[in-house]
Amino acid sequence: MNSKLRITPLGGLGEIGKNMTVFEYEDEIIIVDAGVMFPENDMLGIDLIIPDYNYLMDKTDKVKAILITHGHEDHIGALPHLMRHIEAPIYATPLTAGLIDVKMRQAKLANDVELIIFEADDVLQIGQFQVEPFHVAHSIPDCVGFGITTPVGLVVHTGDYKFDHTPTDNWPPDFAKLAEFSERGVLCLLADSTNADRPGWTPSEKVVEEAFDKLFREAKGRIIVATFASLISRIQQVADMAQRYGRKLAITGRSMRDNTKIARKLGYLDVPDDLLIDIGQIDSYPAHEIAIIATGTQGEPSAVMGRLALGRHRNLTIMEGDTVVFSAYAIPGNEEMVYRIINRLFQRGANVLYERIAKVHVSGHASQEEMKLLINLVRPKFLIPIHGELRHLKQHKALAKQLGIPAENIAVVENGTPLELDENGLTIGERLPGGYVFIDGAGVGEVGWSVVRDRDKLAQNGFFVAYVNAHNGNVIGQPDIVTRGIIDMREAEDLLEGARETIARVVKTYATSNKALDKPIEEALERYLYAETGKRPFVQVIVK
Amino acid sequence: MNSKLRITPLGGLGEIGKNMTVFEYEDEIIIVDAGVMFPENDMLGIDLIIPDYNYLMDKTDKVKAILITHGHEDHIGALPHLMRHIEAPIYATPLTAGLIDVKMRQAKLANDVELIIFEADDVLQIGQFQVEPFHVAHSIPDCVGFGITTPVGLVVHTGDYKFDHTPTDNWPPDFAKLAEFSERGVLCLLADSTNADRPGWTPSEKVVEEAFDKLFREAKGRIIVATFASLISRIQQVADMAQRYGRKLAITGRSMRDNTKIARKLGYLDVPDDLLIDIGQIDSYPAHEIAIIATGTQGEPSAVMGRLALGRHRNLTIMEGDTVVFSAYAIPGNEEMVYRIINRLFQRGANVLYERIAKVHVSGHASQEEMKLLINLVRPKFLIPIHGELRHLKQHKALAKQLGIPAENIAVVENGTPLELDENGLTIGERLPGGYVFIDGAGVGEVGWSVVRDRDKLAQNGFFVAYVNAHNGNVIGQPDIVTRGIIDMREAEDLLEGARETIARVVKTYATSNKALDKPIEEALERYLYAETGKRPFVQVIVK
Repeated sequence: MNSKLRITPLGGLGEIGKNMTVFEYEDEIIIVDAGVMFPENDMLGIDLIIPDYNYLMDKTDKVKAILITHGHEDHIGALPHLMRHIEAPIYATPLTAGLIDVKMRQAKLANDVELIIFEADDVLQIGQFQVEPFHVAHSIPDCVGFGITTPVGLVVHTGDYKFDHTPTDNWPPDFAKLAEFSERGVLCLLADSTNADRPGWTPSEKVVEEAFDKLFREAKGRIIVATFASLISRIQQVADMAQRYGRKLAITGRSMRDNTKIARKLGYLDVPDDLLIDIGQIDSYPAHEIAIIATGTQGEPSAVMGRLALGRHRNLTIMEGDTVVFSAYAIPGNEEMVYRIINRLFQRGANVLYERIAKVHVSGHASQEEMKLLINLVRPKFLIPIHGELRHLKQHKALAKQLGIPAENIAVVENGTPLELDENGLTIGERLPGGYVFIDGAGVGEVGWSVVRDRDKLAQNGFFVAYVNAHNGNVIGQPDIVTRGIIDMREAEDLLEGARETIARVVKTYATSNKALDKPIEEALERYLYAETGKRPFVQVIVK
Repeated sequence: MNSKLRITPLGGLGEIGKNMTVFEYEDEIIIVDAGVMFPENDMLGIDLIIPDYNYLMDKTDKVKAILITHGHEDHIGALPHLMRHIEAPIYATPLTAGLIDVKMRQAKLANDVELIIFEADDVLQIGQFQVEPFHVAHSIPDCVGFGITTPVGLVVHTGDYKFDHTPTDNWPPDFAKLAEFSERGVLCLLADSTNADRPGWTPSEKVVEEAFDKLFREAKGRIIVATFASLISRIQQVADMAQRYGRKLAITGRSMRDNTKIARKLGYLDVPDDLLIDIGQIDSYPAHEIAIIATGTQGEPSAVMGRLALGRHRNLTIMEGDTVVFSAYAIPGNEEMVYRIINRLFQRGANVLYERIAKVHVSGHASQEEMKLLINLVRPKFLIPIHGELRHLKQHKALAKQLGIPAENIAVVENGTPLELDENGLTIGERLPGGYVFIDGAGVGEVGWSVVRDRDKLAQNGFFVAYVNAHNGNVIGQPDIVTRGIIDMREAEDLLEGARETIARVVKTYATSNKALDKPIEEALERYLYAETGKRPFVQVIVK
């Protein structure tokens, strides 16, 4: 039996070690996080992506625990899928457990899944793994990393972190615990690489508070703040400002309402009842007494900001004098849509503040100086940069080398690559096949790249289907043609006429058995459509 | 007759006043620039966008000149379309004229279009307009802005500019001319707003030179620099470094080779013959004697960087030890593809430098302090912020207000909005209909939003076409079904079987005339496909 610790990050070629990591020693497995990825712009029609955990399927009985670092979708979103296959309990802090519980209920799994709540500073003995959660600061409350004592040594997994000395919840990261791990001797550190290309130190949440204070002090009209629904600390800040400057607070957007409710119930959000009003009530108050928190910072057309930009929100219409704040950053790939929405809000008369022009958002992840502090605090023998694209991991490695960690002790790998570890060394295994599993409509994993490539062809070129009744070199009646996405159907009559002539010409030329006619007609139509429109649509012909 | 000056920026809702601006006084028109826009991610299948110049079509005889500020595509790319309708000459500086000439030859318009070359400091009398071009610094040589003396006063159009005191071609912007305009009294300033949300002063091209010097001094392997093909000054810098550090230079990518050729011929690029080698020759030299300039900074899959990322370049394969430099910024909307390519280049063993981690690119546009300097230098009565999205124009206005220009003297408008101007005032007219004209495959303007919406539906949901032969409540034979983009065709047999049953059920239930069957079958198939796949494909049924 292998007496090394095996660490395998699972997922596709996007961010590495972010969504799910498997720790395996002898016949015991613990999993850290089980999150979703969001599709990129060219993954057409795909709703979500989950890590390909096929690797686990023949050893599900070995899984002893799923440990969750925090309640963001990219760390918990795959649980409704994973937990259909695995019986082990999920371990989480109270707020994270509350968010997972909602998910399990929606997936009708609440009765089948054991959810064990722990607090930072508890010690969990799970088989041969001794797990010590430690508090970290991030952009949602109740976040932890894990110190995992394994038979080969102590491994530290940071989760998502920043070293914020003045977080909104006044609960700074647990530096002492990290120092204590360091004294015991850390074999391996897995650390967040998100901002490895950002110099300096990520500003504290305090900075945002100052920007909001100025805004609330000066704004004459309504204030509408869009942020991530999970960014409870930001919601707290906005609520505090509303309280301070005599405004009522309305909350709009489903995920925002849901999260606020759970966070208030569990005591992570302190918002008095009499501060809150329903979004339907806002017109009963003067503009300068209204603050609103909303969803839609990523340009999603169906979220609140997207609907406001198009004038399609039921209870709220942007008016001259409104101040709209995008208190979030745009995830790469979303900028174009986000800026389009910002432009449209300006067009409707709002003044819009966003990250580039006002300090209304700070990152939840450590920047370079914090990453260096972490490494020098923990002093690991081996480093596995996680949570970043390959470019971030490489940059994290460059930083660690500056601090004296030898290059051969730093493993930059892709998702699906097992690492084997003991006190003597770290070896990199062969990458497992697979990576992404697409969630598409009602299906999980039924849609792969081949469908996405078909969709891309349809998106760029459209399709053209013809049913042809041919006999003795003549077309009987008119071919039935169905086509979309090539040119405007109102202008298509000439094109269709030419297509019919093309079909008739091929039928006449070949004048052989009907069976052999479909391919020649398709080829002739492809040539004709390309010549006329410059497009290469999907063409299929059925000959009777 | 209207004795006011009418200024109309043309184009869609993207960047405003960037691609084409019409100046109209009595029965004379001059046009500044005629450029293309690039499609956004959701403009599926669209190749390019040109401004909607329908407004000009009934007064083409009034157009006396098309004045071009510089040779970038977003300022000259629409000329091959516009010049099919307009007989007036194009005025441009030598390099810009060289680039336009190539375009006119490609469009077979070279013999029909008069191209008049001017130098910065010439004075052009065009009807009642006296046009004084003045040199500005930007990211392509030979750029100008225009001082246009009209019967109502002096109007200054900056073109694209930055106040670079140490540009690569040692030709700083013409501050003296701007000061002189100021003394004469400037009625209206149209000024570049691109970087209105960037504080400070855009760094000089000199900064990039220092970064390249360090890179060329230290790199042990090959150096591959990707940049914009029009960024002649960057190409000059790379050539100079190759010369300085004893490397041969290969140029790859069609637009890069074409532009280099023209710029060398016209004397804007000083690259000795013996420095250059063909890309096919690179393997004859040791790695540390090779530098390469290439295209593909925006993640285009068919450009050099995209092909290198996938290992599909004929003459060049990335190897361990290569340094790849992205000497460009990623245009919003392109980041995701650019980062994907950067990650893949890392994966292939290259070290990749890009804007966020090294000073290998600077913007060609003025930042806030330069924008303020411009306003205080020119001291216009009226300001029209141009060249930016609405959010940039608004920010430009905010800066100008800080400098004491009254809000009512600043016109933030969208493309298609005519402004009327005389010494007494500036009035904003009604926005003209139209905006974008899509160039799609072989067509100009034949594809509109309705086709793009069809393509979006196909991209998200696919299509399903069925041809049904029905008689007396029975389906004769099997329906012919053509479908793509819904689910993987290898997994589709169950879905198709269910669809056939659905069709048979409807045919049986209705058992009426064939004519009325198509809609009920389509509706039943839509319900069935949504229930099975969660998708809403385009469905069409033909019943015989």
